[in-house]
Amino acid sequence: MPQTNRQVRLAARPSGLPRPADWEITSEPVPAPDTGEFVVAVSHLSIDPAMRGWMNATASYIAPVEIGAVMRAGGIGRVTASEHPGFDVDDYVYGTFGVQEYATSDGRGVLKLDTSLAEPTTYLGALGMTGLTAYFALLDTGKAKEGDTVVVSGAAGAVGSVAGQIAKIKGCRVIGIAGGPEKCRLVTEEFGFDAAIDYRLPHLRRQLRELAPRGVDVYFDNVGGEILDDVLTCIARGARIVICGAISQYNENQVRGPANYMMLLVARASMTGMLVFDYADRYPEAMAELAGWYRAGRLVSRETVVTGTVEDFPEALLKLFEGANTGKLILAIT
Amino acid sequence: MPQTNRQVRLAARPSGLPRPADWEITSEPVPAPDTGEFVVAVSHLSIDPAMRGWMNATASYIAPVEIGAVMRAGGIGRVTASEHPGFDVDDYVYGTFGVQEYATSDGRGVLKLDTSLAEPTTYLGALGMTGLTAYFALLDTGKAKEGDTVVVSGAAGAVGSVAGQIAKIKGCRVIGIAGGPEKCRLVTEEFGFDAAIDYRLPHLRRQLRELAPRGVDVYFDNVGGEILDDVLTCIARGARIVICGAISQYNENQVRGPANYMMLLVARASMTGMLVFDYADRYPEAMAELAGWYRAGRLVSRETVVTGTVEDFPEALLKLFEGANTGKLILAIT
Repeated sequence: MPQTNRQVRLAARPSGLPRPADWEITSEPVPAPDTGEFVVAVSHLSIDPAMRGWMNATASYIAPVEIGAVMRAGGIGRVTASEHPGFDVDDYVYGTFGVQEYATSDGRGVLKLDTSLAEPTTYLGALGMTGLTAYFALLDTGKAKEGDTVVVSGAAGAVGSVAGQIAKIKGCRVIGIAGGPEKCRLVTEEFGFDAAIDYRLPHLRRQLRELAPRGVDVYFDNVGGEILDDVLTCIARGARIVICGAISQYNENQVRGPANYMMLLVARASMTGMLVFDYADRYPEAMAELAGWYRAGRLVSRETVVTGTVEDFPEALLKLFEGANTGKLILAIT
Repeated sequence: MPQTNRQVRLAARPSGLPRPADWEITSEPVPAPDTGEFVVAVSHLSIDPAMRGWMNATASYIAPVEIGAVMRAGGIGRVTASEHPGFDVDDYVYGTFGVQEYATSDGRGVLKLDTSLAEPTTYLGALGMTGLTAYFALLDTGKAKEGDTVVVSGAAGAVGSVAGQIAKIKGCRVIGIAGGPEKCRLVTEEFGFDAAIDYRLPHLRRQLRELAPRGVDVYFDNVGGEILDDVLTCIARGARIVICGAISQYNENQVRGPANYMMLLVARASMTGMLVFDYADRYPEAMAELAGWYRAGRLVSRETVVTGTVEDFPEALLKLFEGANTGKLILAIT
């Protein structure tokens, strides 16, 4: 008797925060794999700010999720049936499996996970696309080097927490920006940043100037909005601003552009966007370095795991925009 | 009997467009030069958009002009008296002489002009800081190379007209953006751009997409504002946006930031500010190349020369923001 695969599909394009009516729950039988295919029982879904962008009609760096399609999502799971020579039953794998209980794959873009090194969920965090994004954005796009003052926004979040830790490992002075005292404590105590600024308190600029008296050499931006404008007033000559995300703006119908962008001229600075996918051929070297730091206890992977079914995905996604998570937000499928 | 030196001084910091009350006209005797000094009779003043920024209280890439100080300005003139071994009476020179009839200088930052190669005013245009700015911004910051699609805003203006010509010389496809049919005609017919878009007409984005179907590789921005946002929607992967100026915003109390800046991420593109002063040690090589193109008739220097006295400077400055000039705006002192 075939198993049932519950799926979350995009029903409508949201305006602002996604609402329940923007989603549709469907069920279909889990097919047996064809030759060259395998079936994965999805155990954990990666919940990412970028998902909000995929729901818009406008083409971006990736095609929009079509209305009626299973929502795109990275995830990990266990192979339950395989007609593929490279994947065996019980292999743990990472892939873009979508918000569903079972995914059929031909193996393209799917990675096998070394569960002897780390828990599977770590491969959605510091040892996954999250860690790779932080690695390349900080070191390649941001060109962070020893002695630099690095500021990271969303510092208690998935990518930000890893970016700051890598910056510390590389000998930078690292200041995190996060929301609330608990996240700020985490940023300094668990992730080892030199300082944290609570953006919910007043005088962000003044604090930044005190903590970075010679200016900010690298700003790793995950949030956009007012914080980006604040940091722009504090950049050092030749600063590199890495545009990794803009979570404060994803649900706004009118994006706030950085009004202080002319500081780029004053400081002879740059603002550069990055996408981790461009570095696919360098994933192995980065993974080796990340795994080495992880094994040595120099890199912490933090995950906020919400347990539920795929039907809980819409609510889990909203948690991101509420800032409810620290580290990587993951939906564990029971 | 000492000559009189009329001067224009900053009387108040303007809000929005500078008004007559923001200026003060003063007179003082022209001093005889001390040992190591010389006196210049200023013949032409460079009228630059950047001047508006120098009038603000906020420190920028250069100190603000103090209230009561002679307004800062680049200019050219003739040496009328010299106690300096490197400068003789009747030498033609360029320097930051200020908005005044006579300037005393110790020679620092002053360049002697080769009036056999070009008219003196050309040294405020294509063979001056204007040309050097265009050269380094396009080739160094923007990394324009053969085959690139280059878009230049303020294309009929001082820096823009030179930038587009250099891009053509380097084998790029060049699209200019300018205000009104006359300027657009100039951009294609006199400056040799491949196409021009009149931003005062509707559908700038659509025209840009038609003229640059593979996207914009280099955007040389002199204007900021809505045009920057429009071009951001049309950038090619890996595009370089050069922030050279933002004339549309200099008199705004609230700058409009580029709301489409997340296109930097989508296109893995960069936005970088530049200042010509950083290239001082490379001025000779650039000047040699610019002069070679000029001599060969490949580079046109266009100047709009307004004739008057230093007292006409405040009105001349406003012409810039009205877009009244084509090429370099110059005040010739009678």
